[in-house]
Amino acid sequence: MVKERFYQHLGPLSLIDLVGAIDVEFPEGQFTDIQIHNAAPVDQASSVDITYLEGKKSLKRSAACVAAVCLVHAGKAHLVGGKNILALISKHPRADFAKVLQRMYVPLGYGEEQTTDFAHVKLAQGVVVGAGAEIGAGTSIGPNSVIGPGVKIGENCQIGANVVMEFCQIGDGCKIHHGAILGGTGFGVALTDQGGVDIPHVGSVVLGDNVSIGCNTSVDRALFGETRIGDGSKLDNLIQIAHNVTIGKNCMFAAFVGIAGSANIGDGVLMGGGAGVPDHISIGDGAILLAQAGPIRNVPPGEIWGGAPATPVREQLRQLSAIRKLVKKKPSAK
Amino acid sequence: MVKERFYQHLGPLSLIDLVGAIDVEFPEGQFTDIQIHNAAPVDQASSVDITYLEGKKSLKRSAACVAAVCLVHAGKAHLVGGKNILALISKHPRADFAKVLQRMYVPLGYGEEQTTDFAHVKLAQGVVVGAGAEIGAGTSIGPNSVIGPGVKIGENCQIGANVVMEFCQIGDGCKIHHGAILGGTGFGVALTDQGGVDIPHVGSVVLGDNVSIGCNTSVDRALFGETRIGDGSKLDNLIQIAHNVTIGKNCMFAAFVGIAGSANIGDGVLMGGGAGVPDHISIGDGAILLAQAGPIRNVPPGEIWGGAPATPVREQLRQLSAIRKLVKKKPSAK
Amino acid sequence: MVKERFYQHLGPLSLIDLVGAIDVEFPEGQFTDIQIHNAAPVDQASSVDITYLEGKKSLKRSAACVAAVCLVHAGKAHLVGGKNILALISKHPRADFAKVLQRMYVPLGYGEEQTTDFAHVKLAQGVVVGAGAEIGAGTSIGPNSVIGPGVKIGENCQIGANVVMEFCQIGDGCKIHHGAILGGTGFGVALTDQGGVDIPHVGSVVLGDNVSIGCNTSVDRALFGETRIGDGSKLDNLIQIAHNVTIGKNCMFAAFVGIAGSANIGDGVLMGGGAGVPDHISIGDGAILLAQAGPIRNVPPGEIWGGAPATPVREQLRQLSAIRKLVKKKPSAK
Repeated sequence: MVKERFYQHLGPLSLIDLVGAIDVEFPEGQFTDIQIHNAAPVDQASSVDITYLEGKKSLKRSAACVAAVCLVHAGKAHLVGGKNILALISKHPRADFAKVLQRMYVPLGYGEEQTTDFAHVKLAQGVVVGAGAEIGAGTSIGPNSVIGPGVKIGENCQIGANVVMEFCQIGDGCKIHHGAILGGTGFGVALTDQGGVDIPHVGSVVLGDNVSIGCNTSVDRALFGETRIGDGSKLDNLIQIAHNVTIGKNCMFAAFVGIAGSANIGDGVLMGGGAGVPDHISIGDGAILLAQAGPIRNVPPGEIWGGAPATPVREQLRQLSAIRKLVKKKPSAK
Repeated sequence: MVKERFYQHLGPLSLIDLVGAIDVEFPEGQFTDIQIHNAAPVDQASSVDITYLEGKKSLKRSAACVAAVCLVHAGKAHLVGGKNILALISKHPRADFAKVLQRMYVPLGYGEEQTTDFAHVKLAQGVVVGAGAEIGAGTSIGPNSVIGPGVKIGENCQIGANVVMEFCQIGDGCKIHHGAILGGTGFGVALTDQGGVDIPHVGSVVLGDNVSIGCNTSVDRALFGETRIGDGSKLDNLIQIAHNVTIGKNCMFAAFVGIAGSANIGDGVLMGGGAGVPDHISIGDGAILLAQAGPIRNVPPGEIWGGAPATPVREQLRQLSAIRKLVKKKPSAK
Repeated sequence: MVKERFYQHLGPLSLIDLVGAIDVEFPEGQFTDIQIHNAAPVDQASSVDITYLEGKKSLKRSAACVAAVCLVHAGKAHLVGGKNILALISKHPRADFAKVLQRMYVPLGYGEEQTTDFAHVKLAQGVVVGAGAEIGAGTSIGPNSVIGPGVKIGENCQIGANVVMEFCQIGDGCKIHHGAILGGTGFGVALTDQGGVDIPHVGSVVLGDNVSIGCNTSVDRALFGETRIGDGSKLDNLIQIAHNVTIGKNCMFAAFVGIAGSANIGDGVLMGGGAGVPDHISIGDGAILLAQAGPIRNVPPGEIWGGAPATPVREQLRQLSAIRKLVKKKPSAK
């Protein structure tokens, strides 16, 4: 599941080694050392994997857990009880899981030399290409851009100057403009008594064909799996796309649009400048968010929403009109 | 009109070659192959040029059309009828015009070698300078910055690190801070049945003297003509200036200001953080937009506007006060 | 006070040399040339330094002035009168002080060669390191990043690709993601009859341990002193932190958060996407600003605020509810 073109998978690892330095309680008697193949979310971990339970999202899915080992709060251990799952009691299951991820998967390095032959593509001065990267015919890469290990770029793409692309695969005919960053780590912090622990992101970014990414826009890679942008979608400058977001085909976003983690954007969605979508929210096919709109619940297909918090635009206009009338009726005493 | 310091002009080209691969209908009988010199908007195309009609802005100006050839929807062909203009019927005139632009103008490359002599300026390590660039005395350029072909930089400028400058001419005493991007392509997409087509931008960016551009700010080049920022204007970090915007002298914009395409900002305009100006809107001399203001119509000179949608600040304060009173009068039943 | 690891201090300088080319009036008779050691704000200048008075903040502190020389408006000269302070009458004290700063302190250059030995750290291709930089063991630096003169990086830090770090000192275990910029000049402009003069920033940026800075985020250095971010704080992508801001420990800010100059953020503060804090505002420990919140006064510890202008969230919800009811009661005539 974690792509080997980007990450070295160190598993299987002995459970003792894997969690040795982490402050967890092994249940008495029951334990024998086992080999752990992967670390995965609760609904994706197989019977040789380690997972964790913490937070609404994972707790809701605990019934589906078939992992070999589960990091879990003492008070929630019953959720994986009686199921042949080894429950390791942790004060901070997500933070401990973050440490497990770090031991299990190591991002591949750039390598000593650029061994791949890129005679067929135009690499400008100062371009750095990591080991195992693939670049399609007709693609050009601007000065001082950085193409990470294992990155795959399709044909006839235009990559600008000072671009960074890591952990990503992009289709044909894409345009990645100056200063854009694809595949940066997602923003995920697990809280502990001693402050936050950064959660390693071991996913990737996948762009379809003919996608445009504007200057200084950033698209974070997924925690697990993929952050995805569909064919023909066009993103303006200075946009933020967080980890695990899915964006459909032929969307158009203006500058300063921000899409938070795991939001799901349909096909043909238009967003004005500064519109922001919270995490896990869905925006239906063909919907339009006006500039600076901030929906806080799902937006149905085809609707036009504005305001913050956003409402259907007709409702927004009524509210604005009502406020204007209110002022006229009761002129300030001044 | 398209500056030859930045673009190779391939014209004149045979019309047959120019539109051969595009799905347009030639009117029967009437056609003889002709040479097309330039591609230009409807109000700028001369009698040896090709233009298009699509969208309110160009349709309004159709009467002024004197082009040799015009890409136009079947239903609008009468607008250029009887005028010695060859009307080519297209389903997507703007998208087809985008393809014409791509064939007519080719951005100049960086060249194999930096042949220009820059002994008189301080180029830091990793700087890449394109062919034909000119850099004035006393100017310094920080590490890993990229100066595109034909770019002209005045005297005593300070260019930071990891800056990208393409298709631009800047005056004396300018400061372009780290990560800023001048001359990226504008955001323009022509819609078709098969999704959007990026419109090639063949214009430039022109900065006056003593202009400051903040870190990671981007200023897009014009579609045609120039995106302009006047003498002494100061832009903070992470600002977006879109294609064809005009900004006057001595303006000051805080971070996250966004100015959409073809907006027109006067002299001495102040904008607080996150203020956003929609496309084609004018902000008068000396006007002030408060933080997060979102005007949706022209702002007269000298006025102070706030809110989104923005109103004169006195009106905004009345509205906020009325809303507060409303809450006090009718306490929530809870 | 101005750190010599970043700036060459040219003082002491003769007052005549220092202000010779500046349009100031020396009081008749009284003057004898003296040596000026430093330029500093009015409350920090010692008896061998030069300072200025202009603007509410410095005027309020004029009583504390013990400087040798003070640039001041004619109408305010009495504020430093009778105190053995040489008052130089200036039309634009702040702008003239900016010129003094420029003569007194010169940022150190990158140097001809990277003389420091970095065998113990992983520098990727294209990395530029300035003279006098220190990098701790276990730290890695991504391709094409720029580490300025005198910069100090702790142990086990991960610096991404295309990062720029100047005038900064960061602790252990920090993660600075791709395209982030630490230590860019603050945004400060002194107004004059002839437009604005950029104020040289001679301060620095100081990060604690385990701080994360997102992609394309920028943190400006202080005018004097330090812009500070405390241990364990995590900033997402595309955030703006202005000069002289103080951020406590274990804060978490989402994308597009903007903190204006000299704002003071406590420990454990959370901010949603697009929240903006004006200059000189304080946000108390443990406070939460919702997405797009725009407080215009101090936010007490532990409170949750939303809206723009922001209010405590309970008040915001009441206002939103009142507006919704208003619309229901008086349906638009349409």
